[in-house]
Amino acid sequence: MELKKYLQERAALVDQALLEIMPSQELYPEKIHQAMHYSVFAGGKRLRPILCLAAAEAVGKDFQPFIPVACALEMIHTYSLIHDDLPAMDNDDYRRGKLTNHKVFGEGIAILAGDALLTYAFEVLARKGEENPQNQKYLQVIREIAAAAGTLGMIGGQVVDLDSEGKNLTDEKLLVYIHTHKTGALFRASVRAGAILAGAGAEELKCLTIFAEKFGLAFQITDDLLDLFGEEEKLGKPIGSDAKNKKVTYPALYGVEKSRFFVREAIEEAETALQQLPGFTEPLKLLLHYLPERQV
Amino acid sequence: MELKKYLQERAALVDQALLEIMPSQELYPEKIHQAMHYSVFAGGKRLRPILCLAAAEAVGKDFQPFIPVACALEMIHTYSLIHDDLPAMDNDDYRRGKLTNHKVFGEGIAILAGDALLTYAFEVLARKGEENPQNQKYLQVIREIAAAAGTLGMIGGQVVDLDSEGKNLTDEKLLVYIHTHKTGALFRASVRAGAILAGAGAEELKCLTIFAEKFGLAFQITDDLLDLFGEEEKLGKPIGSDAKNKKVTYPALYGVEKSRFFVREAIEEAETALQQLPGFTEPLKLLLHYLPERQV
Repeated sequence: MELKKYLQERAALVDQALLEIMPSQELYPEKIHQAMHYSVFAGGKRLRPILCLAAAEAVGKDFQPFIPVACALEMIHTYSLIHDDLPAMDNDDYRRGKLTNHKVFGEGIAILAGDALLTYAFEVLARKGEENPQNQKYLQVIREIAAAAGTLGMIGGQVVDLDSEGKNLTDEKLLVYIHTHKTGALFRASVRAGAILAGAGAEELKCLTIFAEKFGLAFQITDDLLDLFGEEEKLGKPIGSDAKNKKVTYPALYGVEKSRFFVREAIEEAETALQQLPGFTEPLKLLLHYLPERQV
Repeated sequence: MELKKYLQERAALVDQALLEIMPSQELYPEKIHQAMHYSVFAGGKRLRPILCLAAAEAVGKDFQPFIPVACALEMIHTYSLIHDDLPAMDNDDYRRGKLTNHKVFGEGIAILAGDALLTYAFEVLARKGEENPQNQKYLQVIREIAAAAGTLGMIGGQVVDLDSEGKNLTDEKLLVYIHTHKTGALFRASVRAGAILAGAGAEELKCLTIFAEKFGLAFQITDDLLDLFGEEEKLGKPIGSDAKNKKVTYPALYGVEKSRFFVREAIEEAETALQQLPGFTEPLKLLLHYLPERQV
């Protein structure tokens, strides 16, 4: 399997499904549906959906039935980006080289487009759950995704991040809290959702959870490194913004070499966790190796 | 049964349950939990929860098991108020005589507190669904509540309302769209949630849906009338704001007398719909009669 091709193919599948599942841009009130489409189709890598589907395969199941669940995860991720970019939060004008949602549609519609993506994600999850005989597993997945997106997960991470910005904090506990919550929680829920719906046993779910946590850690450290060494053109945003915003990062706290070592260590631990799984783990391994070489 | 006492008792039950279900204000990150509590406990009448519980009784079931579902509806309602009050939306400094969420906690935290209440509502619904043998009915209720809160429901109403404000529109279709979506959809979902979980048959569900739609209509017209004739002190906000904001309202479009007639008509139709129900419909009747005499 070739990494680039695999990621492209899976992303294309998810894109197609998102287009089918989401309310059309022609649907009244058009403006809100256009705003939702604008950010969902703004060049996201579909990492969370790809992780969800790959987790189902790692348990030995076909990933196809879980594509709508993967789409719901991407909608929640997109909602979080729209709200994070708002003037009252990180106040970003660009994301992935495109104007942010509020810059195009105005703040009011951007807030509502985020709200709508979050709400619609749960509608999709519930509808799929109703159609599927495994009702209870879908309820568990809805609960876990909601918890991961909530104040003890993603929102909690954003609150602490907002609070710490500009304060030049160099607190390791704070760094770990922000990262495990702001980005880690949804990665973890994405992997667990695919695993739970695919019928993972307790031991398999444990291994995949460790994988997801280590993946999330390695992702975040490489994100911090990209802000130092990435190419602005590929990133679609200026580099060095973490330092400018006095954000606490791995390289700032531990230095670049140590941070790169942490990435390698996390990838190794994640790979070890995969060894006990019965299914097709090649995609998850590929995703791990994507991390140190990623450019966006 | 006495109306005032009934409403107070039910609201107290819901308040108590909300306090137990919601994350404590002492939980880290405290600020977001404090912001959530601030608006949830800012004097709401708990109408949506009360409607949900009364619908279960109208089908002949005990309302107690559905209190967490009723709480989830109130959290979604509160999220919508927090976001509606934001500067980018209606830009209100006061609600029910208290400073709005963003005035106390800042815009960033207010946006996140709204997000968190919406997210947590789905977590509560899913958790209750998992615990209950009627998994599929809970999934249906999650789907219906999400749809009612989404772009073809509440959010859609807010989008059109935002878009029409200040334009002095006198379009009946627009008035009906905004009202049935912005407030009507969640009333309808509240009643249907209680009815579905209580095991309402198709005919019973149909009657209660009609009840809910007529209730919502009468509620909205009395809301418009209160903006003209209410007491500012009781309302906790200045009267006449609809005219100032050039909002399309029933009295503006049809005059006061015709608007009052519409209220009476809607109440009569709602009462007729209740007659075919097997359970205890007294609470729903009381709620109807609350409408013309309401002062907040």
